[in-house]
Amino acid sequence: MTNENVELSERHRCFGGQVEFYRHWSTACNTPMRFSIFLPPQAEHGKVPVLYWLSGLTCTEENFIEKSGAQRYAAEHGIMLVAPDTSPRGLNLPGEDDAYDFGSGAGFYLNATQAPWNAHYRMYDYVVEELPALIASTFPADVQRTGVFGHSMGGHGALTVALRNPERYRSVSAFAPICAPSLSPWGKKAFSAYLGSDESTWQKYNAHHLVRSTASRLPLLVDQGTADQFITEQLMPWELEKACREVDYPLTLRFQAGFDHSYYFISTFMRDHLAYHASALGVVGARPWTVA
Amino acid sequence: MTNENVELSERHRCFGGQVEFYRHWSTACNTPMRFSIFLPPQAEHGKVPVLYWLSGLTCTEENFIEKSGAQRYAAEHGIMLVAPDTSPRGLNLPGEDDAYDFGSGAGFYLNATQAPWNAHYRMYDYVVEELPALIASTFPADVQRTGVFGHSMGGHGALTVALRNPERYRSVSAFAPICAPSLSPWGKKAFSAYLGSDESTWQKYNAHHLVRSTASRLPLLVDQGTADQFITEQLMPWELEKACREVDYPLTLRFQAGFDHSYYFISTFMRDHLAYHASALGVVGARPWTVA
Repeated sequence: MTNENVELSERHRCFGGQVEFYRHWSTACNTPMRFSIFLPPQAEHGKVPVLYWLSGLTCTEENFIEKSGAQRYAAEHGIMLVAPDTSPRGLNLPGEDDAYDFGSGAGFYLNATQAPWNAHYRMYDYVVEELPALIASTFPADVQRTGVFGHSMGGHGALTVALRNPERYRSVSAFAPICAPSLSPWGKKAFSAYLGSDESTWQKYNAHHLVRSTASRLPLLVDQGTADQFITEQLMPWELEKACREVDYPLTLRFQAGFDHSYYFISTFMRDHLAYHASALGVVGARPWTVA
Repeated sequence: MTNENVELSERHRCFGGQVEFYRHWSTACNTPMRFSIFLPPQAEHGKVPVLYWLSGLTCTEENFIEKSGAQRYAAEHGIMLVAPDTSPRGLNLPGEDDAYDFGSGAGFYLNATQAPWNAHYRMYDYVVEELPALIASTFPADVQRTGVFGHSMGGHGALTVALRNPERYRSVSAFAPICAPSLSPWGKKAFSAYLGSDESTWQKYNAHHLVRSTASRLPLLVDQGTADQFITEQLMPWELEKACREVDYPLTLRFQAGFDHSYYFISTFMRDHLAYHASALGVVGARPWTVA
């Protein structure tokens, strides 16, 4: 560790590498933030690709690293995993802990423009700028080989940060993402409060809009369970599918029969996603990924 | 489902099979009990071997099925997993919720003989008799092919129920088990209150004693992290090693360098343990298990 700002809180040996939990001062959020990291065994010998995981509503930096089973595959491919918390916490902003889908645990990976949220809820800058800079200065990350993926609200986060920054991310995928937040109750509630009532300001956080407006063609991989209780009202994968078809944007959208919104779904397809990112990130020995 | 006593509370598709959570009235414990189960894809077509997981202190029926990653390997081998809760709960017995290592979440897989615990804390009968009978009558379990494994307090549970019932279990393994509970603070506290001060009554729950007194030679596989904070005071694997050596009992005890007591340790070696049980349970296609 070379970064004095980063404080280790836990370390656990896992699949030949290390799971670690850190706390640090965030300039973007103007408050301490937390993240977990998996350092694969290969990181002891040099720089390795880094794959960010963005979690869904109510999650912390723990859920993914505890439940996804991703470490096994990351160890096989030699990929570093980084999973930040989903929002600032403990700021005593009015209403920050009143609902599971707003405030704490619900940062939506955007930069709030409305008071009081705009003083701290700047998860877009945190995830795109600050955290990668911190990771690069602290861990053996090959930042030229960076990918991002996530679940639900974090699937929205992964898609939108990658679509807006194709020069920063070489691979992106999502599990059950919120594909068109401006059309969903979760998104409308969050965007209204964080961004205000002018819906034109919402568009840069709408995956189904961004695929229509970007010149890049970074391919998207999305897995969606057909028994997901949120699919119709909140996730709307067909909005993403429609937008991609209109502009010929490369999308692999897989509907997984009978799967719901839980980590039982995520863990089942984690192997596929790690193989997909490994291939796109140029991991030596990774097989070219093909749709199963 | 053919058993009216068993109430489904959750079902999640996972690795081609189903994770399910159940609640039922327990005659042994005289209170409702809960368990989780993983039905592998092969269970749709016939009976499959069943492997019981016994969890450690503070755990419920959720920890293993959420964090271990065992479903992937159980799906590959076609093995049913069953993980019961670790004690009765919500009985309002004096002191039942005062400490993490006694009462709720700390049943120790024994039959209490001391009031008030003896009216409900009968986890030995529950795990050895009642739950397997319920599983056999409700799910497609090939009960002739039953194994058991567990962690910490549940490692103690797995070793002791298997050592006392070699006709019921064809395979047994443990992660960081309490090997000699009568010598450890956790065990002394629990055994004193559940079983009373006559230490001769404790012996049937002492793995390091049972290997000396049994005629069977069901092999034991034990993984133990060297960075486990409980190894010296509570777990004492050398007591088991010593006893096995004295009586030539077959034990594979693996010290895993740098691993601690967490599910990050358990998940890392879950593949080995499932392969071990699959081989011992006669799963077709399972490779003979050898020490790595």
